[in-house]
Amino acid sequence: MSVRFTKTMLLYILLIVQVIQITYYLHSNLLYSTNIQCTPEHPTAVHNISDETEAPFMLGNSSLWSGLRSHIKKKYSGLQLPWSSPTVFVVTPTYRRPTQMADLTRLSQTLMNLDFIFWLVVEDGETTQLPVAQLLQRSGLPHRYMAAATPARYRNDPDVGRGVFNRRAALDWLRAHEKRGVLYFADDDNSYDIRLFQQIRSTQKVSVFPVGMILEYGISSPIVRQHKVVGFHDAFQALRKFAVDMAGFAVNLEFLYRKPNATIPLLVSYLEDGFLRALGTSLDDLEPLAHDCTEVLVWHTRTQTPFSPNVAHLPPHSNDTNLPALYANILA
Amino acid sequence: MSVRFTKTMLLYILLIVQVIQITYYLHSNLLYSTNIQCTPEHPTAVHNISDETEAPFMLGNSSLWSGLRSHIKKKYSGLQLPWSSPTVFVVTPTYRRPTQMADLTRLSQTLMNLDFIFWLVVEDGETTQLPVAQLLQRSGLPHRYMAAATPARYRNDPDVGRGVFNRRAALDWLRAHEKRGVLYFADDDNSYDIRLFQQIRSTQKVSVFPVGMILEYGISSPIVRQHKVVGFHDAFQALRKFAVDMAGFAVNLEFLYRKPNATIPLLVSYLEDGFLRALGTSLDDLEPLAHDCTEVLVWHTRTQTPFSPNVAHLPPHSNDTNLPALYANILA
Repeated sequence: MSVRFTKTMLLYILLIVQVIQITYYLHSNLLYSTNIQCTPEHPTAVHNISDETEAPFMLGNSSLWSGLRSHIKKKYSGLQLPWSSPTVFVVTPTYRRPTQMADLTRLSQTLMNLDFIFWLVVEDGETTQLPVAQLLQRSGLPHRYMAAATPARYRNDPDVGRGVFNRRAALDWLRAHEKRGVLYFADDDNSYDIRLFQQIRSTQKVSVFPVGMILEYGISSPIVRQHKVVGFHDAFQALRKFAVDMAGFAVNLEFLYRKPNATIPLLVSYLEDGFLRALGTSLDDLEPLAHDCTEVLVWHTRTQTPFSPNVAHLPPHSNDTNLPALYANILA
Repeated sequence: MSVRFTKTMLLYILLIVQVIQITYYLHSNLLYSTNIQCTPEHPTAVHNISDETEAPFMLGNSSLWSGLRSHIKKKYSGLQLPWSSPTVFVVTPTYRRPTQMADLTRLSQTLMNLDFIFWLVVEDGETTQLPVAQLLQRSGLPHRYMAAATPARYRNDPDVGRGVFNRRAALDWLRAHEKRGVLYFADDDNSYDIRLFQQIRSTQKVSVFPVGMILEYGISSPIVRQHKVVGFHDAFQALRKFAVDMAGFAVNLEFLYRKPNATIPLLVSYLEDGFLRALGTSLDDLEPLAHDCTEVLVWHTRTQTPFSPNVAHLPPHSNDTNLPALYANILA
């Protein structure tokens, strides 16, 4: 049996093919543009930065491509997180020291593997620093870089914890600019497995997890029985209700905002405990991550203090070489 | 003036639109598949791994998506490297110690930002370790994981450098499997700016660059005058012709293979110098990177040794909690 194609039949077939193609094209385009628009999920933050500060901030353009990259990563990473999964606000207090650039470079490159991070870097100093601002710019990460110095009267007080005032500044900024998301305090000299940040996104109230290489036990961990946190295994228990390290918990912003005045206390060794108590946290609120706290996904590594470069070491007759410029760069 | 469309005219217009669409579709598809095929550029390596070892290796599938990711990164990173730019073979000697997983996690996440890396990890031990193999697998990086133990008679000899035998094993493997590319020795406790790896790709013979946080000077750098290396600024000069750190140079494989027997010598403190001498390197062969060696893109960071976890610290009545599993994982 043979079929004779009339012009009308051919016309209809071609029209149908066209419609199918256009539908497919529109559909995939729609998918892409949706993904691009949803990363970052905090347009207000990105917008306000440009209003408020002269520090460099993310270019719209790199946000576009990070969105595209994010689409591919999310689609094939096997994570299957919903598009509306929250941003993780990583708060990193930092200060000028010989290892600062190495530590921040390392941490930035860890975060660059993730597409749901907003990085809040707060310098304990009077001003921000150009090399750090350039590093943040290069990273392509959505970020906010601020300076918040410890007041002079507390600076050498052994009873006052370090990084209190820059963490407080980050809390103030979040309260003023962000509604949804998860807060995580990440010091720049720790080491993080990117899976930790992926898990942190699920935080409903307060999530907790083990931290490796800490104090005399070499580990600090919540104690979990039948998927519930029942206590803490930490070398320093003292009077703490929540014996956790700063790197050992994350807080959902909605939970944080229930207590508008909650903040980090001054007393050294009690920063985490005081903050979680101020939030009115109960043991029942704690959500154990890292497979019921049986895995270590963050380590309290510390970088050994190196010898400081000193121009006294410059050899004679080196004025017309690279060395003066090199020393100028590392001593900046 | 009005035009009347006949069925024949409509048919032709639709046909032309179809041809344009199909051509466009084929063209973009061809572009994509080319990119995917060219990453990784060392099919022999990936193939041989599965023949030779039981250690996990890269799945074809993740290679596909890393190719896709690579396409996007290359296209929009502004680097404009040609597709034929060489693979950088990053050789990382490692050994079991409390900080190993933290250090390797950090380094893997740095390398995951790059799409031209082949990672050769060589354990100084009798066997490879499952947690490290799993980390490599998770990274999605093309890699080879081997064990090459230091012979017992050299193990505690203070005159023998560390990491000699695993670096030698990596050299042997490269000679047997790879023709083109650039070799770089990257210890797992250093910190690397990803721009360093991008610059290393251009190495024709031997490239050199400053290393931060090293020895009493806090820096080790080639001395560069008018774009040529004329000497070295390093706290330990001694009898060294090339006073460079292991992290301070990279070698093109073609240059390496000109001396089929060149290897790393045993004598402590002379590993780098002896290796570069064995390659017949002259000062003229050295290519200064990092803007004529005025920037630091790699730091000789060292991770402070932490307290070791010890089951003696386990609290009583913790058998039915997460703690035994947690300790089993960190002490593995």
